[in-house]
Amino acid sequence: MDLSALPYRNFWHPGRSPLPTLGALIQERQETNVQTPEDRVIERTPSAYSYPLLVKQLLHTPLANAPDQEIVYRDLFRTTYRGFVGRIAQQAHMLQSLGVGAGDVVAVMDWDSHRYLESYFAVPMMGAALMMVNIRLSNEQIAYALDHSGATTLLVHADFLPVLEVIHARLPQLQRIVLLQDTQPAQTPLPTVGEYEALMAVQPTAFEFRDFDENTLATTFYTTGTTGLPKAVYFSHRQIVLHTLAAASGLAASPQHQRFHRGDVYLPLTPMFHVHAWGLPFVATLMGVKQVYPGRFRPEHIVDLVAREGVTFSHGVPTVLQMVLAAAKGRRFEGWKIVSGGSVMPPHLCQEALAQGIDIFTGYGMSETCPLLTLAQRPAQPGLDVPDDFRLTAGWSVPLVDLRVVDESLHALPRDGKAVGEVVVRAPWLTQGYRGNAEASEALWQGGYLHTQDMGRIDATGCLRLVDRIKDVIKTGGEWVSSLDLEQLLAAHPGVAEAAVVAAPCERWGERPIAVVVRRPGNASATEQALRTLVLEQAERGLIPRYAVPDRIHFVEAIDKTSVGKFDKKVLRQKFAQASAPEHQTALA
Amino acid sequence: MDLSALPYRNFWHPGRSPLPTLGALIQERQETNVQTPEDRVIERTPSAYSYPLLVKQLLHTPLANAPDQEIVYRDLFRTTYRGFVGRIAQQAHMLQSLGVGAGDVVAVMDWDSHRYLESYFAVPMMGAALMMVNIRLSNEQIAYALDHSGATTLLVHADFLPVLEVIHARLPQLQRIVLLQDTQPAQTPLPTVGEYEALMAVQPTAFEFRDFDENTLATTFYTTGTTGLPKAVYFSHRQIVLHTLAAASGLAASPQHQRFHRGDVYLPLTPMFHVHAWGLPFVATLMGVKQVYPGRFRPEHIVDLVAREGVTFSHGVPTVLQMVLAAAKGRRFEGWKIVSGGSVMPPHLCQEALAQGIDIFTGYGMSETCPLLTLAQRPAQPGLDVPDDFRLTAGWSVPLVDLRVVDESLHALPRDGKAVGEVVVRAPWLTQGYRGNAEASEALWQGGYLHTQDMGRIDATGCLRLVDRIKDVIKTGGEWVSSLDLEQLLAAHPGVAEAAVVAAPCERWGERPIAVVVRRPGNASATEQALRTLVLEQAERGLIPRYAVPDRIHFVEAIDKTSVGKFDKKVLRQKFAQASAPEHQTALA
Repeated sequence: MDLSALPYRNFWHPGRSPLPTLGALIQERQETNVQTPEDRVIERTPSAYSYPLLVKQLLHTPLANAPDQEIVYRDLFRTTYRGFVGRIAQQAHMLQSLGVGAGDVVAVMDWDSHRYLESYFAVPMMGAALMMVNIRLSNEQIAYALDHSGATTLLVHADFLPVLEVIHARLPQLQRIVLLQDTQPAQTPLPTVGEYEALMAVQPTAFEFRDFDENTLATTFYTTGTTGLPKAVYFSHRQIVLHTLAAASGLAASPQHQRFHRGDVYLPLTPMFHVHAWGLPFVATLMGVKQVYPGRFRPEHIVDLVAREGVTFSHGVPTVLQMVLAAAKGRRFEGWKIVSGGSVMPPHLCQEALAQGIDIFTGYGMSETCPLLTLAQRPAQPGLDVPDDFRLTAGWSVPLVDLRVVDESLHALPRDGKAVGEVVVRAPWLTQGYRGNAEASEALWQGGYLHTQDMGRIDATGCLRLVDRIKDVIKTGGEWVSSLDLEQLLAAHPGVAEAAVVAAPCERWGERPIAVVVRRPGNASATEQALRTLVLEQAERGLIPRYAVPDRIHFVEAIDKTSVGKFDKKVLRQKFAQASAPEHQTALA
Repeated sequence: MDLSALPYRNFWHPGRSPLPTLGALIQERQETNVQTPEDRVIERTPSAYSYPLLVKQLLHTPLANAPDQEIVYRDLFRTTYRGFVGRIAQQAHMLQSLGVGAGDVVAVMDWDSHRYLESYFAVPMMGAALMMVNIRLSNEQIAYALDHSGATTLLVHADFLPVLEVIHARLPQLQRIVLLQDTQPAQTPLPTVGEYEALMAVQPTAFEFRDFDENTLATTFYTTGTTGLPKAVYFSHRQIVLHTLAAASGLAASPQHQRFHRGDVYLPLTPMFHVHAWGLPFVATLMGVKQVYPGRFRPEHIVDLVAREGVTFSHGVPTVLQMVLAAAKGRRFEGWKIVSGGSVMPPHLCQEALAQGIDIFTGYGMSETCPLLTLAQRPAQPGLDVPDDFRLTAGWSVPLVDLRVVDESLHALPRDGKAVGEVVVRAPWLTQGYRGNAEASEALWQGGYLHTQDMGRIDATGCLRLVDRIKDVIKTGGEWVSSLDLEQLLAAHPGVAEAAVVAAPCERWGERPIAVVVRRPGNASATEQALRTLVLEQAERGLIPRYAVPDRIHFVEAIDKTSVGKFDKKVLRQKFAQASAPEHQTALA
């Protein structure tokens, strides 16, 4: 891929010709790298003392230091780390006995379970690649992703057999189906090779996992943009190990709060198909903490599990967290730490979580970045002017992350809390592209940095605040408006449950912001007038520009979301941007 | 190096022929590694999206997240991380302007200072290798090490000019000498290129550090065994970065105590020439904590600095820690956490430190291992039967460390707290050997594991206890005796300041243990009779074997130590093993 030949996607000035600086930048990086004298390079080739960074190496600490610590699946299954490592060996033997070998792709369709965790390890450790199927996609998209990944083997929960029965004929590469079930034996006309636990039970509990190249593909996952087919991100063993170490040290090193440590009890609220539940099951395993897997997401079950198993550390998207808090019915969760990610955290979610005893804070990243880039842990430096709302910001980089907000020439913008540009990153765990999609891959990597397509600003403390997705930026009268700022502002109204802001085309101003709002049940206070007053007050106080006040506010029952719980702004624009209002009023009319 | 051709050093049965199993083991590892299909290997060659693990990458977090945090040198110099990164650039420019380039070796002779910390980063970051000179070695050994390392450049503190003046003629490769000084201008007849601060001051504060191969040599250090010339261990950029990440996550992830976190203030009590002060300045930098460097070690200065700068995290060898506690004169150090390493911690040091409010615990490693392997942090698993004296044990593995206690065939021994064997390790940060010393290198690496030459046992909680150095093992009547156990036992007597135990040859039993003891000042209670009674009581209670009771106890003013503060058992054996006692008595006579 010749990156230097690419036109730079110029998001401020669409249509301008490519900037000449970028090719030069890349050229410079390639040409001027220091040539190390050969006699100073050590361990270039694998040898008796080389140590490749492989997923299996994450198991040394828990196995040596916490062998009797528990791994729990609902009220259906409990094991220890010692048992878990035995089951990893059994899964590898099972897959091997079925004909799976190094280089194969093994897909999983399951709820969040110990079986999934076993697959996180066994599949990559035997040299195969784990494909995590997003079960919220359409049948069409699931069929596409399974086939595109080249999966030869599928571990599928009984609940998804109806989907598989529909799409099976379109999966010619699929050679074997292993059935996962909980309590009820499942029936299917599909040719399965057997049921997971029955197949596991006859296997030995030790497997000699060999060393191999640390750059071997370990996992892949399909991410859905708002346009086109799902795109495959992919990660090597080395990338997963480095992400795990950096996430562990970043999460653990906070002085007291907003941290994850060996004494915690872990339960993910991010589905395990979504970038390996943000990679945190690997971190939990490295630390040897008790892990609790909840199966299919049911808010009231989560509330029970948290209490019963003593859960203290979780993570999820705001929508899911909101559902859990609502199910708790005011019950307090003293000592529960939760990382909120995937979307900007609404202020009222933060307030409610804090009021219920939860130490909630933001983590920022994306499928393409494995995903962790930053964490909103309160910095330790004394005398630092930390913003009061630090939990709502994207926060501060985790170790090894080279994160910048850049202008069009890829020059870093000042860390003054004002200059806004695209967030670009280097880190040792970023996808190299989208498999088999050269065009999208080339847009992702430019000038040696992965382009997040998020617009943000960084303040003097290093704190990153996101302003918008590039494609969601609203440009009005030559100025642009942060939809995220507006959404957070609207969501702070006590009568608002959720608020999304998108651009509507406007002949006079180019674009104008409009809002789509869900009212809180039983609270009618969020009238159009009340919300407009709220926004105008902020504008009067100079906190947002006056031209940011939305032209229209649409009240709806629910806001359309993507399969991973984010606002689907493409759909919102389709639904609302053209609606009525033929004569655009200015913001202050 | 053909490891498989080597005889295995059989420490239990010297003289026996090499075991055939080892060659087979190595052969097997080399031959059976999984061959990854080419299309599943990603990022094999450097590209626009590759991210080599280079020392410079450790600076992203502190620079982004703690730019105004302080780095302090005594009462002579203070800067911030922002300033520190500027000074790294200045040092690189200075060295470059003097003709130093990628592949050069730059040596440092300095007390513990900000200048040394700058060299930890600037020298490797520009592609050169940092050589840390052990200033406690003899002139002869320093001359050998400097010349053997190929150092072309030396940064030397004025205090070491007398040494350099003596050995300078023997350093034909040395092209440039940069003078380091504190308050007094130094005079020397040697040709220096200038004084450090003066040379630095004229340099720009930004330097474009390029990417290069992560396996490039970054640092080297000469370790002194008890025999022969100093031997060079060496570490690549990749190794330092991985050691830093694993140490950070291991140290930080402890639930509450025995941890190092972003809110700490760091001061090393291990000299910076000794394996980069155990690598912890890199960890401190990654975390962005305040760092305090004490210059030349003076116990009373340390006590003052700790109070003045609010130090909360340190590390050092027991002898040094003992001197600091003594200088404190009973003053309490509430909240100071100290890792003790290098030698087994004497119980009375632990008690005194705890009594003075210090959270003291052991770290285990060696120069060859970068050095960290294990930490004696209380495990978090509830219900675990943690030994009361956990702080005195070597503790539990840090992430990625594959640590085993093995028998002669390299088979892991049971983790039953009883089976004793050699501690062998794999980790991604172990020296590949001793530079230019094939024989010693080949003894170090056998069967794909680095052999620590430490004998130990592991209990069911994963806790490692060291029993002896292989070469210090005492073999009596076919059984062997742990000198470390005996030393800890003797040192527990209130009248004993220090106690070393070594083997004396014995015609009847082969070898017999003898003890060398330093009494506490002003306390005469540790008589030979008292100590024999103490040991015999333990033998009666079955806690040590009866044949372990020392034949003789020598009372001395001071015990000979190596340059890094360990008992010099080679010297002790020479001095005491042959002394008097022509007729050996049995232990219980």
